[in-house]
Order: sequence, then C-alpha cells, then structure tokens
Amino acid sequence: MALVVTKFGGTSVGSTERIMYVARHLIARQQCGDRVVAVVSAMGDVTDELVAKAGEVCPEPPEREMDMLLATGEQVTIALLAMAIHSLGHRAISFTGSQVGIVTDAGHTKAKIREVRAERVREALEQGRIVIVAGFQGMTVDGSITTLGRGGSDTTAVAIAAGVGADVCEIYSDVDGVYTADPRVVPAARKLDEISYEEMLEMAATGARVLQLRAVEFARNHGVTLHCRSSFNDSPGTIVREGDETMEQAIISGVTHDTSEAKVTIRDVPDRPGVAAVVFGMLADANVNVDMIIQNVSESGTTDISFTTPKEDLVRARRATDAVVAELGARTWTVDESVAKVSLVGAGMKTHPGVAAQMFKALAGAGVNLDMISTSSIRISCVISASEVERAVRALHTSFGLDSDEISAESSPACGEVN
Amino acid sequence: MALVVTKFGGTSVGSTERIMYVARHLIARQQCGDRVVAVVSAMGDVTDELVAKAGEVCPEPPEREMDMLLATGEQVTIALLAMAIHSLGHRAISFTGSQVGIVTDAGHTKAKIREVRAERVREALEQGRIVIVAGFQGMTVDGSITTLGRGGSDTTAVAIAAGVGADVCEIYSDVDGVYTADPRVVPAARKLDEISYEEMLEMAATGARVLQLRAVEFARNHGVTLHCRSSFNDSPGTIVREGDETMEQAIISGVTHDTSEAKVTIRDVPDRPGVAAVVFGMLADANVNVDMIIQNVSESGTTDISFTTPKEDLVRARRATDAVVAELGARTWTVDESVAKVSLVGAGMKTHPGVAAQMFKALAGAGVNLDMISTSSIRISCVISASEVERAVRALHTSFGLDSDEISAESSPACGEVN
Repeated sequence: MALVVTKFGGTSVGSTERIMYVARHLIARQQCGDRVVAVVSAMGDVTDELVAKAGEVCPEPPEREMDMLLATGEQVTIALLAMAIHSLGHRAISFTGSQVGIVTDAGHTKAKIREVRAERVREALEQGRIVIVAGFQGMTVDGSITTLGRGGSDTTAVAIAAGVGADVCEIYSDVDGVYTADPRVVPAARKLDEISYEEMLEMAATGARVLQLRAVEFARNHGVTLHCRSSFNDSPGTIVREGDETMEQAIISGVTHDTSEAKVTIRDVPDRPGVAAVVFGMLADANVNVDMIIQNVSESGTTDISFTTPKEDLVRARRATDAVVAELGARTWTVDESVAKVSLVGAGMKTHPGVAAQMFKALAGAGVNLDMISTSSIRISCVISASEVERAVRALHTSFGLDSDEISAESSPACGEVN
Repeated sequence: MALVVTKFGGTSVGSTERIMYVARHLIARQQCGDRVVAVVSAMGDVTDELVAKAGEVCPEPPEREMDMLLATGEQVTIALLAMAIHSLGHRAISFTGSQVGIVTDAGHTKAKIREVRAERVREALEQGRIVIVAGFQGMTVDGSITTLGRGGSDTTAVAIAAGVGADVCEIYSDVDGVYTADPRVVPAARKLDEISYEEMLEMAATGARVLQLRAVEFARNHGVTLHCRSSFNDSPGTIVREGDETMEQAIISGVTHDTSEAKVTIRDVPDRPGVAAVVFGMLADANVNVDMIIQNVSESGTTDISFTTPKEDLVRARRATDAVVAELGARTWTVDESVAKVSLVGAGMKTHPGVAAQMFKALAGAGVNLDMISTSSIRISCVISASEVERAVRALHTSFGLDSDEISAESSPACGEVN
C-alpha cells in the first residue's frame, strides 16, 4: 500500500468531463490499495481569464488582491473534483492551500513555502478519504492568501508529498514524460525512463517545460521521488530521483532549447575592477533576472558585457541598463530579441571529455553560428540565432546518438553522425 | 464622521464597469469623512453558473463541497473591487468570510452566524482603508468554509455592522426602497421613508423581496439601523429601525403577495387529540417548511387539515404527506399549486379595529374568493387563487388609501374607496 501524491494541471482538469476522468482515475488508484492525495490547478484558461478581469479594473493590481482573485481558480477545481468522486460513490474532501497548512512568506504572487502543516491531510487519509488539495496557493502566518507563482501547483504537490512522506509524487500533464528533446522539434526524440534531479534541474532551467525548476529543487531538497506522466493514458512516464549507479548512465540525457530570452550587450564599458559588480548589482536591484553572462576585453581599455534575460524582464532591463551606461560612462547598449539557447544536459559528461568539442563541431556542421557559451559540470549551453534553433537541436540530437532509431543499435555518443 | 457598512448585491457588481461604479461610490463616501465597509455578493449570475457546473459532475453534491465552490463567487468580487479602488488611487483591503471572522455553525449551505470577530475590519479601518468583505460566507470553528444560504450577503452586512458598531447598514439593490406594494403589480405604489423592524419582518415574510427576512431579524436583534436604497442613484431609500412615536404611523404600511407556495390538504383525518401534532411533527422531521395552517372539523368525526409550503419543498412534502395519511388513516391528500397569498401589513392595525373586515370587503368587491386566512397582530394574510392575485393586491392598495395620488390628499385608510 503506497501513499501517492498526484498532481493534475489545468489541461487535465480543463472541463467537467476531464474532472470526471480524473475522479475515476483517483478512485481506481485507491481501489488498488493506495492512499491518494490529488493536487490540482485551475481549470483550463481560468487563471488567464481572471488576470484579464483584473486588467479591466486595474492596470497594476495590488499583488495581495491578485492572489485573492487567482486563488479562486483552484478552489473551484477542488470542489468539483471532490463532488465528482462523491457522485461515483466514494469519499473525498477538498482543502484550499490555507486549510491544508501551506504556510508561505508574504511575497504575494510568488510566495515561497516556509512550512507544510500536513495534519489535516493525514487525518483525512486515515478516514479513508481521497484528499483533494488546491495547488498554487498558500497563506501567510497572519492568514492572507498567497500564490506561489509559475510552477506553483507542481511545487504544492512536492511540498505535500514531503509533508506526508509520500512514496512518490506523480505529476500528470499532457506530455507522457521527459524527452531527450522537444518532440515537436525532434520527431525522433525518445522518452527517458529515469533521470537524476541534477539533470532534470539543468533541463528545466534550459527550456524543458515538463517540470518546473522550483518543484524539482524542492523534490531534490526533500528527497521526493517524482513520476512525470501523461493524464491521457496509463503508460509509465519518467522517474526523477537521486542519481545512483543503478540509473541508466547515458552521457547525454537530452537537448533542450529556449527562445524566451533576449540578449543585451553594453558597449565600451571602461575596463576597471568592479565594473561587472556594478552592472549586475544594478540589474539585480531592478529585479532583472540574468541568465548567461560574457565579457570580452578589447585592446582599447574598454570591454563589452553581454547577458541574457527573460523577455518578460526586458522593460525593467532596458531601464536599468540605461542607468548602468550613465553610471559607468559606457558608450551605448543594444538588445537582440531574436536569440535562442540550445543546451546539452547529461551527468555522464563529467567523466567524458570531448563533449563540448563534439557539440561545437555538430553545430558548425549544421551551419549554426555561436554567440555565447556557458557551461556547468553537467550542461553546455550556446546562444545562437533564433532562426537556427530547430536545426541546431536536431543536429545535436542526432550527433549524440539520441534519435530513437539509432538508440536501439548503439548508444555511445561517439557513434553519432555529425551533420 | 459615520461608520457605514454598505452591501451591494449581484446586479450591482454584475460587470467590471459596475464594480468601477461601486468603487467610485465608496471612495466618495470615504471622502465625505465616513469610514466605509462594503459587503458584496458574487457578480451577476456567477453563483448560478457554479451551481450548474456542480450539477455536471454530481447530481447531489456534498454540501461542504458546494460551499467550497460557491464561496469563490464573492471572493472574485472582493478582489476586483479592492483592485478597482486601488486603480482610482485609494486604499482598500479585501477579506473572505473566513478571514473577517464570520464564525458559523457547520450547517453547510445554510449556516447560522455564531460570532463575528471584527478586529481585522476595525484595524483596517483605522489604517484608513476601505474594507471589502465577501458576503454570504463564513467558516466553522475548525476552518471549513460555509455559506449562509438565501439572503446571506444581507445577513453578512448586518452582522458586520453589529460587530463593528456601525451607525447604519445600507443595503443597495436594483430597487430604491420598500414600497407599499410591488410596483410591477401596482403602478401607484409608494416608497416608504421609514418602516419598523416588525412591519418589515412581516412584509419580508409575506413576499416583499427587497430585504431578506433573516437579515431584518438579525438587525432587529442587534439594533442595527438598515437603509434600503438603490445602487443606481443617490436618492434616499427606506430606513428600517425600531418603531417609535416619531415614525410615520400609517395603519397599513403595505400590501404584499407571494406566489411561491402551494397548498396541501389532507382529507378526512380522524378527529382526535394530537392529530395536528403528528401531522406537523412528521412534516418537520422531513424538513418541510410550513407557513399557514387551517383545520376544519366536519360533523362526521373527521377533519380536513390544510397547510401551505414553499413549492421548492413539495417533493419532500408529498413524500411526508403520504406517510402522514398512512400513519393516521386519513382518506387522501391533494395539492394545489395555483394559489397565492396576499397580505396587509401595518403596525397601526393593532389599535384600529375593522381592518380585517375592510380587507375582506375589498376582496369581495373585486370578486376574489378567500381560501385560507391567517393573522398576526400586525398582519392579515389570505390565500386566494393565483389567477386573482394582481386584482386582489390592487384592490387592497386602493381600498386602504395607499395609491400615491390619494395619499397626498388624505392618508387615512378609512377614506379609501372599496372596489
């Protein structure tokens, strides 16, 4: 008898028919002998509709009120799902984030979980109920409703799983697992059976949308095993857990890409100690997220500093960069919104030299020009032109032997064809 | 500087445009120097839409989950209204029923208020904020969300007004006060400037829809002055307060009517002591609300017992009456759904004999047949055929001198023409 936390996203509960389907699924799980907790998101486009309504009355809504508004989305889902289970003759009980004891800081619209008081979940499970929890939301110690921001429902699920000591936290969505690349770009992409937290973190950070970065971090920090699977079928998905010797040790787990960032370059910054600290200090103060950074020293005593930032931060980034240029006496700055980042992720590259060289060779063979390069111990990322990103991903996927036809014959990346 | 609790119903907040209008109204009130609390309902048809959604997943939803679902309606309104006030440059804060300390019993979907912990409202008012409270909802001592049932938002407003010691509780709706009769039936109906709690209770109980019975009861019990007015203009409405000698002492305050009840008659019940106790005990056990009761003793040793009950209770009433007939050995029972109740309400009738006689004469003159009669010290009600109700209301309104043209000439009901 396992204790299972399951999470269903907005598409999975996007209609009352889908809610009935989820209800039957949860009942079946319980009938197998499992104790079942379900964490659910708002139905379909409900959150977007609420955001639009807020925009009709207030251009910049106070974040506390935004959370008050958005939290209703999941509350509707939990009530309907509990009713659906009831109509099928089984016992369920729903809890909001406040009721279930998801205590957060007061960072409205992007609150961080401080504590999970899971007693009510445990009590309800002991009474034989299926427990339904609203994802994405919590409350401050003084009772204000908060929301957890992007990926919040995944994080709720992992936090509840950690709080009740679940055997596994299953994340259901419209994809059936973690792939070696985005199957829409690489038809030959292959589903991974298992992946380590570290690799999943790098993949999530570099564009894999299937799991949210902070949920994976929370899972790693609390040792929660994730199972990422499809809500439309019963096939096994991808297990995310601590990497060990029993885990498949492919050198490269996947190729990810991300077109959500822009590149900003500050030209002719005086080259003196502390300049980078000023630039990125001012950007941080302006709440601009910075991903990759490169700095090239020129011979004239000035330097160019480039960084990438999410396009949604660009308004703030432009303002902050204007101030940086004035502060440092730099010449000017430019922004390029048509860039993309392509990344190779794999724990095996730690012990396999030559991966970077093979990556650059594969990209060169595909006629892709490199703009910026950044590496971690298990990842190599390159910024390239957005127009070349699909060609780049396919070239790398093939080069590192990830295409599903080749995999069955030979899994060594050394055997991958370089285009 | 007054402390004012205002309540806006679903129509008054039925769109984001209407919410902006309410926001401007509240700000104007605050700028006059008042401290302002607003209690609001769900927008327009939102509650009906949620009930329909529940019906899609569960024919008889558990009441706890129904409350979880319905409470989202008001939560959306309070967030949007607080945002609207913010966008106009003023400070507001919203609270759910749980947050504001509306503690109820566990009678889900029709919970009774046990206690109002109004500290958070008082604190927010002291900070200079306009306080927005979700109507219709509360929580049990163990934190489950409850709803207060029909008229719940009016009751929330009155409870908050009592809790914070407000000078007045203003109930805004799409009608501009309490009328001597339904203006759709009697075009000459006249708005009342003032009415006592007792009269308002009788009018609400006999068909006046402008204020909910339980809200008036709560106001009377806690001495909260009500002001019932239009959300579409600034005209003064009707004040409801303790009757005293300064209050206009019309003999008749109004004529009300109600077509929402059906009449059930049990035929040939053995006439022995305790029979009525059995009948109405069994109906009460079946959760059937009973309004008027008459019993006629026949010469054969049996009796007919008739009662009226809300049509929405008829399914339960039919079941219970079947059992009653079997239990008592009565002959049969019949139901008449095409009945109406017409009532005269007025504190002055206590000291004016002959009101009943004039009422019956007026109805007879209009060719209206009486089916059942019931009286209190300040009300006389007659059950008649539904097809005759409008004629009956108009005849009584004219007979008792309530028509607006006659009022200006002479206000004594003795001068009213009997049709």
